[in-house]
Amino acid sequence: MEPFVYHNPTEILFGPGMIREIAPRIPQEAKILWVYGGGSIFRNGVADQVRAALESRPYIEFGGIEPNPEFVTCMRAVEVARRESVNFVLATGGGSVLDAAKFIAAATVYRGEDPWEILRTHGEVVAGALPIGTVLTLPATGSEANGNSVISRRETREKLHFTSVHVFPKFSVLDPEVTRTLPARYVRNGIVDAFVHVTEQYITRPANAPLQDRLAEAVLATLIDVGPRTLRDPSDLDARASFMWSATLALNTLLGCGVPQDWATHMIGHELTALYGMDHAETLAVVLFGVWTYKLSAKRAKLEQFGRRVWSVVSAEEAMRKTEAFFNSIGMPTRLRDYGVDAAEAAREVSARFRAHGWAFGEDGDINANAVQAILELRR
Amino acid sequence: MEPFVYHNPTEILFGPGMIREIAPRIPQEAKILWVYGGGSIFRNGVADQVRAALESRPYIEFGGIEPNPEFVTCMRAVEVARRESVNFVLATGGGSVLDAAKFIAAATVYRGEDPWEILRTHGEVVAGALPIGTVLTLPATGSEANGNSVISRRETREKLHFTSVHVFPKFSVLDPEVTRTLPARYVRNGIVDAFVHVTEQYITRPANAPLQDRLAEAVLATLIDVGPRTLRDPSDLDARASFMWSATLALNTLLGCGVPQDWATHMIGHELTALYGMDHAETLAVVLFGVWTYKLSAKRAKLEQFGRRVWSVVSAEEAMRKTEAFFNSIGMPTRLRDYGVDAAEAAREVSARFRAHGWAFGEDGDINANAVQAILELRR
Repeated sequence: MEPFVYHNPTEILFGPGMIREIAPRIPQEAKILWVYGGGSIFRNGVADQVRAALESRPYIEFGGIEPNPEFVTCMRAVEVARRESVNFVLATGGGSVLDAAKFIAAATVYRGEDPWEILRTHGEVVAGALPIGTVLTLPATGSEANGNSVISRRETREKLHFTSVHVFPKFSVLDPEVTRTLPARYVRNGIVDAFVHVTEQYITRPANAPLQDRLAEAVLATLIDVGPRTLRDPSDLDARASFMWSATLALNTLLGCGVPQDWATHMIGHELTALYGMDHAETLAVVLFGVWTYKLSAKRAKLEQFGRRVWSVVSAEEAMRKTEAFFNSIGMPTRLRDYGVDAAEAAREVSARFRAHGWAFGEDGDINANAVQAILELRR
Repeated sequence: MEPFVYHNPTEILFGPGMIREIAPRIPQEAKILWVYGGGSIFRNGVADQVRAALESRPYIEFGGIEPNPEFVTCMRAVEVARRESVNFVLATGGGSVLDAAKFIAAATVYRGEDPWEILRTHGEVVAGALPIGTVLTLPATGSEANGNSVISRRETREKLHFTSVHVFPKFSVLDPEVTRTLPARYVRNGIVDAFVHVTEQYITRPANAPLQDRLAEAVLATLIDVGPRTLRDPSDLDARASFMWSATLALNTLLGCGVPQDWATHMIGHELTALYGMDHAETLAVVLFGVWTYKLSAKRAKLEQFGRRVWSVVSAEEAMRKTEAFFNSIGMPTRLRDYGVDAAEAAREVSARFRAHGWAFGEDGDINANAVQAILELRR
């Protein structure tokens, strides 16, 4: 096990009706920027509950955050926040809204000239942020309990992340009830997103960290159990609650303590979303098996352990097949052709971007432009 | 799954050499009360590393905290802290020292007349505390990452706990290197203590919380793996590190989120320590199987799941036998007679105390005086 620092100060308020608990946690004198997406919060009851909880506190609404939140949209919110001297950001929605809120909270107090620097430096220039609270409506990204955010810029077809201790939410409400009306596609995406968050921290090389391994397997086994149940029966609130809590623990930074991490699948996936508009989870479901196959000899020991403990199979190859079949079984295609994307072109394009940036990811730092070419060709 | 609030703001600094990281985390202007126990920190290198890290910050040493920290001793420290206007408490040691530091931190700023009220009310009267930092030398209690503390009072043969959000450490250093010189008895105790912390939150009744179940099983399976390795080979730092991290996660309040909790074994155990001076872990190893046997029909489903997933056996009875054999295998006797304690007398005495206080514990609130009588008679 490698040395690590673990610090997750986010307060989780979990369960039906917990939205009312935001009231004592937002200062009475707060001037709130209330950030949301396409308006689903007006249909799932979240908006009404938030309004009731905020009571007489003044707030400014900023709706319209899109999936893969856009830099330009966020900068409009930053303008509002600065003009109105906002001092608290409340985000209600899925990972995109939460990620946008984090960027807005950091960019509002950023003193540099160009807030895109926050993303270009992956958060290095972030010295502070407005306090953030969230009400999660879509279990998937883990953004409700970490310091990560991913922002897109359509004009340059870029999708970059930043990480900062300053943007951990002060509190996050997780009420499974409000996820009941989620379309199946979002649930399917959330299952895959959470699943791959775990594997990015687990399917690497053995690191003498048996507790982290077993915690990762606990989350994966639970997702395999409750994910399909959530899809099958939208009224199964028990399954829904466990799915929600699994997605949070998949990326609240606990599983990655003291172990090597991969993240190549995510980084390649971001490029596919930027280039072809595939859903984030769709890109993960495609790329994951390319990365695993490309790195099979290095990852074999962990894939075998994963296969043995989670799928009750004995080989790395069977573990991969089981996982791909699981994704397919919840309606998630796993080949580029399934999304109408030409693999040769995608391999060329993404690999060119990796080359231009000099990027290399993966637990061994060897997923570079050449590796990406091979990985995406494997996913035709 | 039941609604819950989860908030664990303690920053964990894990790994060799991490003691130096306390420097930037203690304010330059801090006036520190440095609390420790019997002096092992002067032999295991902790004291030297702490002194180097504190640099020029003024500190007052308060050593001599005993196992099962004594109210009277803590109150002497409170006197010093008040007289010297201390504004930071640094604890270096095992659970006893950390528990003492928490009580000292709370009692120093307590405005009531009798700080024993903090314990009598189990923390209800705690409205604040001095900030606390810890350097853990003995993996066992989980005190390094929770808001719990247990204090004893010899004159009245009482041992009471309190819980408060105000006494979560700001940071805790977990350096497995400094645990290398621990006597086997402390390691054995730590394994059992951590193990029973998990079972108190897991072996209850099914609660539709499959993720919490699997996380609990992950910690138990890891303890069964690395505990004996730590005992067998004191130089196995990998095992030692995983043991240390397992003991922290066993009681950092994560496993108990949204599930019923038992704690009857601990409450009965505290009385045995107060009456007979048994080590805390020894009392747990004795009482646990009494509670499980007494509540067998209610706990059967969870014991069977535990048996199947952790011990690869099929019945609740076999799971109990396996667990008891595990404790015995690491040198931990599990019967009252092994400690020279007369079961009939202990049953009578502890049960009388439960009756006097009107206590009832356990996930169903039915471990009252009569139950205690039966439970301890089972452990003759």
